[in-house]
Amino acid sequence: MSSEPLFKHLALIGVGLIGSSIAHAARERNLVGHISCTARSEATRQTALDLGIVDSAHASAGDAVTGADLVILCAPVGAYGAIAADISAHLSPGAILSDVGSVKQAVVRDVGPLVPEGVHFIPGHPVAGTEQSGPEAGFAELFDGRWCILTPPPGANQDAVDRLSGFWAKLGSMVEIMDPRHHDQVLAITSHIPHLIAYNIVSTVDDLEKVTEAEVIKYSAGGFRDFTRIAASDPVMWRDVFLNNREAVLEMLGRFSEDLAALQRAIRWGEGDKLEETFTRTRRIRREIIDAGQDLSDPDFGRWSSHPEEEEGE
Amino acid sequence: MSSEPLFKHLALIGVGLIGSSIAHAARERNLVGHISCTARSEATRQTALDLGIVDSAHASAGDAVTGADLVILCAPVGAYGAIAADISAHLSPGAILSDVGSVKQAVVRDVGPLVPEGVHFIPGHPVAGTEQSGPEAGFAELFDGRWCILTPPPGANQDAVDRLSGFWAKLGSMVEIMDPRHHDQVLAITSHIPHLIAYNIVSTVDDLEKVTEAEVIKYSAGGFRDFTRIAASDPVMWRDVFLNNREAVLEMLGRFSEDLAALQRAIRWGEGDKLEETFTRTRRIRREIIDAGQDLSDPDFGRWSSHPEEEEGE
Repeated sequence: MSSEPLFKHLALIGVGLIGSSIAHAARERNLVGHISCTARSEATRQTALDLGIVDSAHASAGDAVTGADLVILCAPVGAYGAIAADISAHLSPGAILSDVGSVKQAVVRDVGPLVPEGVHFIPGHPVAGTEQSGPEAGFAELFDGRWCILTPPPGANQDAVDRLSGFWAKLGSMVEIMDPRHHDQVLAITSHIPHLIAYNIVSTVDDLEKVTEAEVIKYSAGGFRDFTRIAASDPVMWRDVFLNNREAVLEMLGRFSEDLAALQRAIRWGEGDKLEETFTRTRRIRREIIDAGQDLSDPDFGRWSSHPEEEEGE
Repeated sequence: MSSEPLFKHLALIGVGLIGSSIAHAARERNLVGHISCTARSEATRQTALDLGIVDSAHASAGDAVTGADLVILCAPVGAYGAIAADISAHLSPGAILSDVGSVKQAVVRDVGPLVPEGVHFIPGHPVAGTEQSGPEAGFAELFDGRWCILTPPPGANQDAVDRLSGFWAKLGSMVEIMDPRHHDQVLAITSHIPHLIAYNIVSTVDDLEKVTEAEVIKYSAGGFRDFTRIAASDPVMWRDVFLNNREAVLEMLGRFSEDLAALQRAIRWGEGDKLEETFTRTRRIRREIIDAGQDLSDPDFGRWSSHPEEEEGE
């Protein structure tokens, strides 16, 4: 614990689930000296101070970043342009400016032009999260064993990329370098479309006449329940994801809908072989995700809340 | 444990996840005397005997049900017609014939006409399960706190309905009586459509050119992972569900697709307010499911397999 911290001063712009988890982990693992933060609401700033995860909390983003050698934007991506304009003049030469947004081309577009000469702009995206929001939702282990994607622009300072990679590795992540356009395509299918269809089916049940909402809730253990979890994710964050990754989301959604129409047709015409073949193929991908350490093999679909102590013993 | 069992002889036609869980729970809670079973494969019958969850295993379904006062069909619903033909002449007068199928109108259609006079036919559906299959996947607590829907035909013997309800209550379930047609509509949206879209998105990633399967697996913690779990469910069981609940599934799928098209349009035209409003509405339903004891509130989306012992301590 007595080793030199990787950065002298970390500034977090936003301390929701991701920002507060970075603060928890960075503090616990002694990765930074001072941690400052800003948040739009006074209550959030106070909570961050009360939790003891930041040393200072500022109403002004410019004040928060002053003197920082690592600045990480942890706000909804729709706010990045305004934030970049606010902090631009306050960034220190040699500082690294990064973020945790779920889209990357839009970040390059909105923030890139406002980064002053001598500041190293290296967008990032830790592929980790829970369905919960706010500074109290964070925990130090969130990034353990999860991938963090960095999208340094062409010609980025290699030393800065290495330092930021090292920071994420110490937060527990495996780090991958990727082109922002490719990032947005990969995440469209692995994250954005799953969220969209989960939001959509939960929204659909809200409007049915033949089945009541009380019935849906009672029998949700049949499968629906699993979708409500990710459909409880932060609405503003996800609004901004869809508005800022439109092209890739619409392209992948087109594929999803086309394939769904084919299954619909197979059901209508009673093509059992086609259904069984599709449902068999999908099992293999599940096994590969478990083998890759990205999920547990324990059966979870039937977990029962009335006996959590028994479940935990398994 | 010395109280009189509810049934002298339980016969299970099929001992997969659900059948073996019934056997585990019925035995552990002393609900039945003898448990017999049949299964199509010799290996499955032997596994059921080796697990000690059945007293006898028979190659012939007719032999398995001989002398039973409770018979439960636990096979894929597409096999019910043939099974009913096989067992019809062997059912004892006064016996209850039930099942655990995820659709109910098709069961009434396929099995009903083959039930002999004096046998009480009361279809059932425990809304519980995991993504795992086979006799080894069963466990006694699967039904605890979950709903079991019974769909007795008009004029069903009330004493028989009460005895079957009592059996499911002792297995841990809350019991609801429902019309088969309404059952199929409720389950279409709470279970069948969720499974269909999960199978579909997992299948879609299999066919993409721009994103590799290795990338999807690596970054699956972004949301995709959650869908792979229910898309790993038994392919034959689910084939039969869709073939046998066609009308309700196609109707609910129509609603889902219509709503998805509206979200797609909102993304295309940058209607952030509409997106945010939809995503906010869906949070409430999640809270109600947790309040109803049908899921845990612990954040799960970010669960990390490399440190299960830490997670369990939360």
